[in-house]
Amino acid sequence: MARVLTPRAEDFPRWYQDLIAKAQLADNGPVRGTMVIRPVGYAIWERMQADMDARIKEAGVQNAYFPLFIPESYLRREADHVEGFSPELAVVTHAGGKELAEPLVVRPTSETVIGEFMAKWVDSYRDLPLLLNQWANVVRWELRPRTFLRTTEFLWQEGHTAHATEADAREHARDVHKNVYQAFMEEMLAVPVVPGRKTKGERFAGATNTMTVEAMMGDTKALQMGTSHELGQNFAKAFDITYSSAAGSVEHCWTTSWGTSTRMMGGLIMVHGDDNGLRLPPRLAPIQVQVMVVKAGEGVTEAAAKLRDELKAAGVRVKLDDRADVPFGRRAVDAELQGIPIRIEVGPRDLASGNVTVARRVDGSKSPIPIGDIVGAVTSALKADHQRLYDDALAFREENTVDVKTLGDAIEAAQTGWARVPWSAVGEAGEKEANGKAVTVRCLTREDGTMPDSDEEPNLIAYLARSY
Amino acid sequence: MARVLTPRAEDFPRWYQDLIAKAQLADNGPVRGTMVIRPVGYAIWERMQADMDARIKEAGVQNAYFPLFIPESYLRREADHVEGFSPELAVVTHAGGKELAEPLVVRPTSETVIGEFMAKWVDSYRDLPLLLNQWANVVRWELRPRTFLRTTEFLWQEGHTAHATEADAREHARDVHKNVYQAFMEEMLAVPVVPGRKTKGERFAGATNTMTVEAMMGDTKALQMGTSHELGQNFAKAFDITYSSAAGSVEHCWTTSWGTSTRMMGGLIMVHGDDNGLRLPPRLAPIQVQVMVVKAGEGVTEAAAKLRDELKAAGVRVKLDDRADVPFGRRAVDAELQGIPIRIEVGPRDLASGNVTVARRVDGSKSPIPIGDIVGAVTSALKADHQRLYDDALAFREENTVDVKTLGDAIEAAQTGWARVPWSAVGEAGEKEANGKAVTVRCLTREDGTMPDSDEEPNLIAYLARSY
Repeated sequence: MARVLTPRAEDFPRWYQDLIAKAQLADNGPVRGTMVIRPVGYAIWERMQADMDARIKEAGVQNAYFPLFIPESYLRREADHVEGFSPELAVVTHAGGKELAEPLVVRPTSETVIGEFMAKWVDSYRDLPLLLNQWANVVRWELRPRTFLRTTEFLWQEGHTAHATEADAREHARDVHKNVYQAFMEEMLAVPVVPGRKTKGERFAGATNTMTVEAMMGDTKALQMGTSHELGQNFAKAFDITYSSAAGSVEHCWTTSWGTSTRMMGGLIMVHGDDNGLRLPPRLAPIQVQVMVVKAGEGVTEAAAKLRDELKAAGVRVKLDDRADVPFGRRAVDAELQGIPIRIEVGPRDLASGNVTVARRVDGSKSPIPIGDIVGAVTSALKADHQRLYDDALAFREENTVDVKTLGDAIEAAQTGWARVPWSAVGEAGEKEANGKAVTVRCLTREDGTMPDSDEEPNLIAYLARSY
Repeated sequence: MARVLTPRAEDFPRWYQDLIAKAQLADNGPVRGTMVIRPVGYAIWERMQADMDARIKEAGVQNAYFPLFIPESYLRREADHVEGFSPELAVVTHAGGKELAEPLVVRPTSETVIGEFMAKWVDSYRDLPLLLNQWANVVRWELRPRTFLRTTEFLWQEGHTAHATEADAREHARDVHKNVYQAFMEEMLAVPVVPGRKTKGERFAGATNTMTVEAMMGDTKALQMGTSHELGQNFAKAFDITYSSAAGSVEHCWTTSWGTSTRMMGGLIMVHGDDNGLRLPPRLAPIQVQVMVVKAGEGVTEAAAKLRDELKAAGVRVKLDDRADVPFGRRAVDAELQGIPIRIEVGPRDLASGNVTVARRVDGSKSPIPIGDIVGAVTSALKADHQRLYDDALAFREENTVDVKTLGDAIEAAQTGWARVPWSAVGEAGEKEANGKAVTVRCLTREDGTMPDSDEEPNLIAYLARSY
């Protein structure tokens, strides 16, 4: 078979861009750093959204929508926040044919404008916790854009919550981080992640604690797949988000925020993609099974349509491909590129013997299956293929992660994988040294893998890696 | 009962804003003309989106996402388009800390940027029709903003399609207009609409034909609930969207676009709202039934929870309100404000006789119903209440629409309702005269109510009205 993509081993970044183009996932937009998400890519994002949204609602959070334009003065109210975001802002200076009295920032994130409204809506402790989320586009001017991973405009969800106590805020942020984000990535994307705490230097601008879920990409680099922040009382004080307590005193709230974005599309590609294209985890796949007419005639199209109907009735997301005027080979290559988990190839010869061919994207296997057994075979294959993708990604991460004792060894190991090293052997000075060599501390965890309460806890483990 | 809202008859615009505030549907944003859609309002919008999206997909259209920022030069390529939108544009001049070489327009609509990509994606007649839709925010600077109806930023869906022939483009636009838009408004929103053709003066900037669905609000003004446009080859020529035909010649495509927005939220309120608040059509309502504990004790909470479970199992969207610490009257007022179709009031006295009280929002009726009959009673009430809302709105429209023969009579009748008048008695000169008196031609229809193919057809009827 002719090579469709630059092989991963030859040039990983080019393989990534090739895959996105050939699978028709996205195009570059007309403005540098922006992207067009094409129907094949957007259908995957819609499945991500629907599943994530259900988990967010299950956590008791309500969706809302806040404005795109934020008065520049709002961003200035929290010192760390404005300092962190200023270099990335896009600014509207003219509207309605006139120059504006105050320039408007196109939201890079919505802590500030949501803080303003939390202050209006929260009155007493009975109004807390206030748990909000929005699905929206945000803009951060990127100097080195890369499709899905770093784009000037991206799509995301951003949760914003206000609580009466620090303990309640912390518990909420951890609940979302584990039961929404980590669970979604493992159960829906089949991507194993390491949850951990960001160092002070890697925190979100304005946060007192940033938690991350890190995944290893196919080139062993790390990708931050989502983050959850405790914001302490920083935004509550900047925006005067207060409540009257049961005892009658006026107190500042404790707020959190948490976000995941179309960046997950990039992670999905780089964790599961291979030299033939994307491999979609079955729970996520918009089309789980493509029933393909190899060659029309001899009842083939009818048999294929019947299979489609049976699979649909069994709850499988199935598409019939009966485009007999397009060469079968090209259709199969396209299905592989787009990562459709299962192809069922229906041809006259197989059919004569009562079989069809089941081709599984996860491992490239092809087997003849009696036509009467298809529904059972497909449903169990879809289940197994999710696990297979997850297990393979986890095994790959473990093979490429080493435990070391010193900063020097960690920086060296991070050239070709992830290094786990005692945080006490790194520290803030060591972190700077690593950064100078394009290695970052991805996160800190306890030895047993649980989430630290502070960077100062003894015996913390640091993950060092190159990253996107 | 104390009056909650300014009565509709006293001051309709103030009633509208009161309702939006008191029902917690939306707030004004910090930038003039922008809005914050609060959770109660956003849940309604999400239900609109989900149903509309399913209808759009059923029509064979795929979702995608195009960038927020459009190079200013794109808008200039189609002369009518730039002329129509220039006064409403918001412009980004600075980003990433620098002045941009070319200013970026925040999309007021996406014909131009989508045209650019259609040109890349369409090669042969086999690629047609190309049917795309996106859910997005758009920005049009508004001088006289009003929540949901005219906001500087609003949420919408915009369909954009390319076709090989004018006939195919026309058929598609009409199919969406009737089977997606009109059907959605009648079947989901319980809002009767008049589909018709816009006059030349009221067309979308760059269209060769604009079709509208017009609804009568509670003050007898008209609201354009959605529009579908035939764009001819205007954008195809401006963006070079061409295809090679089966015969091998290179031809320009014919394109369409169509959109509906959060403006429908305003229409919903003004069609169905009354002096007690919103009335939600049952199919749309995020919460169809609120089961309310009138007073805790004597097994009331348990009985209410059991009813909630039974209704949920029967597919009803139900919420249990057991906040015994909040006065029952206040909870009932809030449920009315928010338009929840049915309240089931569970109290100790009723329960002792085996009954609960079913209160229907549509007509304010209250009846005792044996607790064993609730599921059946609720499901048939929800069905009937949709019809009731639709029928009432239609009857109101008919009562307030008059047939007249002359322009003068039409303008006079339009002060207090809608006028139907022969288009030949109005014409472009008459339209300008009417506009001078704040009356517009809402649309043209044939005498039998079907959609005209041109403004020049004989015997067309014009609808004249004041409008939002």
